[in-house]
Amino acid sequence: MASPTVDIHTHIYPSSYIRLLSARSSTPYIYAPADPAECPRLIILPTDDSPSLPPSSRGRPIDGTYTSAAAKVAFMDQHGISASVLSLANPWLDWLDPSSGDPAAVARDINDDLNAVCALHPGRLWCFATLPLSARPESIVAEIRRVKGLPFVRGVIVGTSGVGDGLDDARMDPLWEALEQEGLPVFVHPHYGLPSEVFGPRREESGHVLPLSLGFPLETTIAFFRMYLAGVFSRFGGLKVLLAHAGGAVPFLAGRVQSCVRHERSSLPALARAGGERESVWNVLDKNVWLDGVVYSAAGLRAATEAVGKDKVLWGTDHPFFPPVDGKGEGEWESVRTNVDAVREAFRDDENGARGVLGMNAIRLLGLKLGPGEGGTLE
Amino acid sequence: MASPTVDIHTHIYPSSYIRLLSARSSTPYIYAPADPAECPRLIILPTDDSPSLPPSSRGRPIDGTYTSAAAKVAFMDQHGISASVLSLANPWLDWLDPSSGDPAAVARDINDDLNAVCALHPGRLWCFATLPLSARPESIVAEIRRVKGLPFVRGVIVGTSGVGDGLDDARMDPLWEALEQEGLPVFVHPHYGLPSEVFGPRREESGHVLPLSLGFPLETTIAFFRMYLAGVFSRFGGLKVLLAHAGGAVPFLAGRVQSCVRHERSSLPALARAGGERESVWNVLDKNVWLDGVVYSAAGLRAATEAVGKDKVLWGTDHPFFPPVDGKGEGEWESVRTNVDAVREAFRDDENGARGVLGMNAIRLLGLKLGPGEGGTLE
Repeated sequence: MASPTVDIHTHIYPSSYIRLLSARSSTPYIYAPADPAECPRLIILPTDDSPSLPPSSRGRPIDGTYTSAAAKVAFMDQHGISASVLSLANPWLDWLDPSSGDPAAVARDINDDLNAVCALHPGRLWCFATLPLSARPESIVAEIRRVKGLPFVRGVIVGTSGVGDGLDDARMDPLWEALEQEGLPVFVHPHYGLPSEVFGPRREESGHVLPLSLGFPLETTIAFFRMYLAGVFSRFGGLKVLLAHAGGAVPFLAGRVQSCVRHERSSLPALARAGGERESVWNVLDKNVWLDGVVYSAAGLRAATEAVGKDKVLWGTDHPFFPPVDGKGEGEWESVRTNVDAVREAFRDDENGARGVLGMNAIRLLGLKLGPGEGGTLE
Repeated sequence: MASPTVDIHTHIYPSSYIRLLSARSSTPYIYAPADPAECPRLIILPTDDSPSLPPSSRGRPIDGTYTSAAAKVAFMDQHGISASVLSLANPWLDWLDPSSGDPAAVARDINDDLNAVCALHPGRLWCFATLPLSARPESIVAEIRRVKGLPFVRGVIVGTSGVGDGLDDARMDPLWEALEQEGLPVFVHPHYGLPSEVFGPRREESGHVLPLSLGFPLETTIAFFRMYLAGVFSRFGGLKVLLAHAGGAVPFLAGRVQSCVRHERSSLPALARAGGERESVWNVLDKNVWLDGVVYSAAGLRAATEAVGKDKVLWGTDHPFFPPVDGKGEGEWESVRTNVDAVREAFRDDENGARGVLGMNAIRLLGLKLGPGEGGTLE
């Protein structure tokens, strides 16, 4: 029987964000090649912008799959996806200089724009809002309160730098408090990776593989465990975080972190700050953590399921990233298929569990009301 | 029914290594406090040796559990461990300056010493040899050939720096070739972790937790995938690597690495060097990789098992590290119990699988012949 399918991890750059980046000439920015037949290029990291690169190799081409609601819905139709929860892709607004404009006003435009994109396809599109993290704390909190009132916003997305010093920074507390109070889940997503030297002197021979496949998930892993060690989940017991890429490596390393905490011999100020005996990693995973299913293997998906519970893993695609290398993305995407197959294999004997991960868990977490006939066909 | 239990991940510093470090005064070295009632302290990282630390906080106390075969066997008896495969703990010999002595001679002494320690308890102790990685390549290869002839040596242990530039360095090829020819598995173990700044400005508030619980496994993860991308396992198809700490995060991230390789748009010189179509990550895991079971959770152990097969995961303790924080280590160690429980839970319905991980897989991989009566009692 068909069951609704929801894509929890899918990105879009709405027109206000495209305008913002197109008006800039240093990272992050959008570069328009002289030949109008060529796609504009998105350059989000300084390493993408090396003067040694020819213009056609800088960053990545940014076509309609990055910007258009119609392209998103066409992709969904093609893959049998009932509903998508859109988020602005990195680098969000962390980099906005508050001395050259009001980050809160920029965030309001983008979030209104995202909400309007969803309104074009009611019952199929929802979104995570973006926060003006370089604004004053009260402005960030005000935007959290405001987006709660936008009909299609169901949470927020943040990178790992927080208001500049990491998600374990006490200056994040007013944000966590507001998000907890408003019942808005926080989608934690990587952007910075790891310092490139950790990948060794031959890293460029494998292109983007090491920073993308390891730097990204390891950044998320470190960010989450820093939050845990700083006692964020003890202070904000109702906070709900959704970790990108199945938590990076959180499900696999949770046991080792728990063991190292139990065996730490030095006294830990952070422990005292958390107000006594430290809450276990497993308790926090159980209470505060949801994971997307973007992990590309049944082994990974099962570990994610065991770490947080099968009702708290939510399937996703990471669209429009990882399009087919050969062809124009008109057929089925291999990156999508791999993550569907992982669910099918991990839940071979548990059809209800598979339906949960493929859609029902997201519907329940975010209170989505799908349109009539959106039963989904993803098999 | 009792079945033999083997500890694949257990360290010792034999007397020749203790003498070597005790004669030094910069890292790595052993510091003897003025008060002879205090334990000597092992200082292996520059951060352990900060002038701001009082002498009693520098490094870690190094007592008989680090150095004595009798202490090792007592620990084994206490925990029902039939046999142990000893390895020198980090930092091995990578740091030896060849201009101030012959690293190959030092390695010979240490390996003979390790072999002699095992001979004290035949049928219970075996070992992984240490390589003189700062020696000339032909001296390293000669030591590989030589240790193959030592009766208790069953493989070698290496860190991630190789002969100075990583395990993906082509200068490692003669070593891989010799190890493959001699049928000696390579135990890959972390030491350097990640640059400390990746753990953020509040990292010291959680003591050693972040570098130990994340830095160590992430170092192993990066080192292994660098080897994979450099085509090491395509050139040396019979090479057997045993990855510490269940591969760091290799089992969880293998799917993402495979997907990123499949979706890489730039041309990869490494691919051409490997001689054509790149071998899949899953094929390499199946063919070349064994994992220890030092992962402290059933979720992690199951992922490890799925990644390489249940016949290729080998239980271990990491003794003498992670002793009980309260008390003197005379009772059962929690760190040991956690890893036994992980096997018991992951193999709840598969007693043969549990026996494999707890001992039989190591016996088969390394050709161990246990003494009479060493049936093991680990439950």
